[in-house]
Amino acid sequence: MFQKSHFNHQKYVICMFSKSRAKYIQQLSQKKHRNQSGVFVVEGHKSILEFIQSGHMPKELYVVKNSLFKDHDAWVVDSSQMKSLSHLKTPSNALAVFSIPYKSSPSNTDFILALDGIQDPGNMGTIIRLCDWFGITELVCSKDTVDCYNPKVVRATMGSLARIEVCYVDLNHWLSEQKDHMIVGASMEGQSIYETSIPKRAILVVGNEGQGLSALVSDQLHKEVSIPQYGKAESLNAAMATGILIGEIRRSQTIQI
Amino acid sequence: MFQKSHFNHQKYVICMFSKSRAKYIQQLSQKKHRNQSGVFVVEGHKSILEFIQSGHMPKELYVVKNSLFKDHDAWVVDSSQMKSLSHLKTPSNALAVFSIPYKSSPSNTDFILALDGIQDPGNMGTIIRLCDWFGITELVCSKDTVDCYNPKVVRATMGSLARIEVCYVDLNHWLSEQKDHMIVGASMEGQSIYETSIPKRAILVVGNEGQGLSALVSDQLHKEVSIPQYGKAESLNAAMATGILIGEIRRSQTIQI
Repeated sequence: MFQKSHFNHQKYVICMFSKSRAKYIQQLSQKKHRNQSGVFVVEGHKSILEFIQSGHMPKELYVVKNSLFKDHDAWVVDSSQMKSLSHLKTPSNALAVFSIPYKSSPSNTDFILALDGIQDPGNMGTIIRLCDWFGITELVCSKDTVDCYNPKVVRATMGSLARIEVCYVDLNHWLSEQKDHMIVGASMEGQSIYETSIPKRAILVVGNEGQGLSALVSDQLHKEVSIPQYGKAESLNAAMATGILIGEIRRSQTIQI
Repeated sequence: MFQKSHFNHQKYVICMFSKSRAKYIQQLSQKKHRNQSGVFVVEGHKSILEFIQSGHMPKELYVVKNSLFKDHDAWVVDSSQMKSLSHLKTPSNALAVFSIPYKSSPSNTDFILALDGIQDPGNMGTIIRLCDWFGITELVCSKDTVDCYNPKVVRATMGSLARIEVCYVDLNHWLSEQKDHMIVGASMEGQSIYETSIPKRAILVVGNEGQGLSALVSDQLHKEVSIPQYGKAESLNAAMATGILIGEIRRSQTIQI
């Protein structure tokens, strides 16, 4: 668990609250401003703690008076000032600005999840939380996948973003270079995940909510898998399908071991 | 698929648009008004079609001019009138009022999902869609579970609510009467779902997002199951955990068969 004394030794850049600072932080809800500044926003005491515990150092930290951070090196704001900083309708008790981690290329771990054009921030956040539960440290995304530092994504990850490495690549090109992984696509037309085996070294690729996998990515697949349908729903939500597939892959790998 | 001619033969009560009608429909976003009137609202052409195809007859049907329903027995409204009827920020092209189906007690199917105090409408909707995918027709809920006719739930089910029977009961009492089902609770402290077997006749009970299963319900369990954690996320979303557990139970049942 988190050590209070450890937290006390963190060093923050104390930024005073000002209207121009509020405008700057508000603009960080947009991807182009995040990319220009190389920073993103995390809101909420618990999520900020998860980033700090994972070794991320906040560049700015704002707290409301009655917050748990009140004894630490942070700028204390009142609730109306927090409202002017926050990206949320109901602001939290704390807001921090962190640097976007630099990541040149994905690591060569055994099991990798790849996303091909996931658009919904809630799905993206849920998938990052899933990765954190199932011990998948590597998430590779096509360039048109929603930005993982989008405030809605950050919020939906519930702090898990602090522990997952997310890399945006030319997915088709990157997959073409993966010679020692089986590339498995999630597809309604695929083999039942219950009746096929996935090796330890595999990349599971999940497509866009509406369109599924892009044609170029489909050409790279060694196998397609699906979740058997017993009822009449037309589809499962993309994050839910990802969870059920990963749950099943982890089970089969556990049994293999 | 849906037959146009079949649709033409449906009989609707044509309700004229009026401000008082709009007020009445707006109030149906609240549970007490739904219960008083015995009706609920479905928005969107596709979802309304799914209810009609499943044998539900709309009591009222409103469509915007350019809607796909335009040749049918429905009241045509303009977009500002639809806005005054709709429970959505961005109204859909159609809105229907249906009767709440009367359901005295759950059917005695082999596999039953039970919810003990699920509160989030998005989770509830996702779980209903999951049931519809996995062919679970029976969803039994404790009285304090969110109402399945809440507009946010209806929307999140993507039409699947039309096919799932949802029953609200005194869950503790109802479970105590189930003598030929194994009662299995989802719990962080349970046995790994990967390493235990669930018989064909089973009730899976999933608890509240924050508190988990209530004490009274926990006393009724024959077994507790969990999803193995490989990483560091504190928890999975309740709907996601339900999906992974059901996916795994369906797999093991498929293999048994």
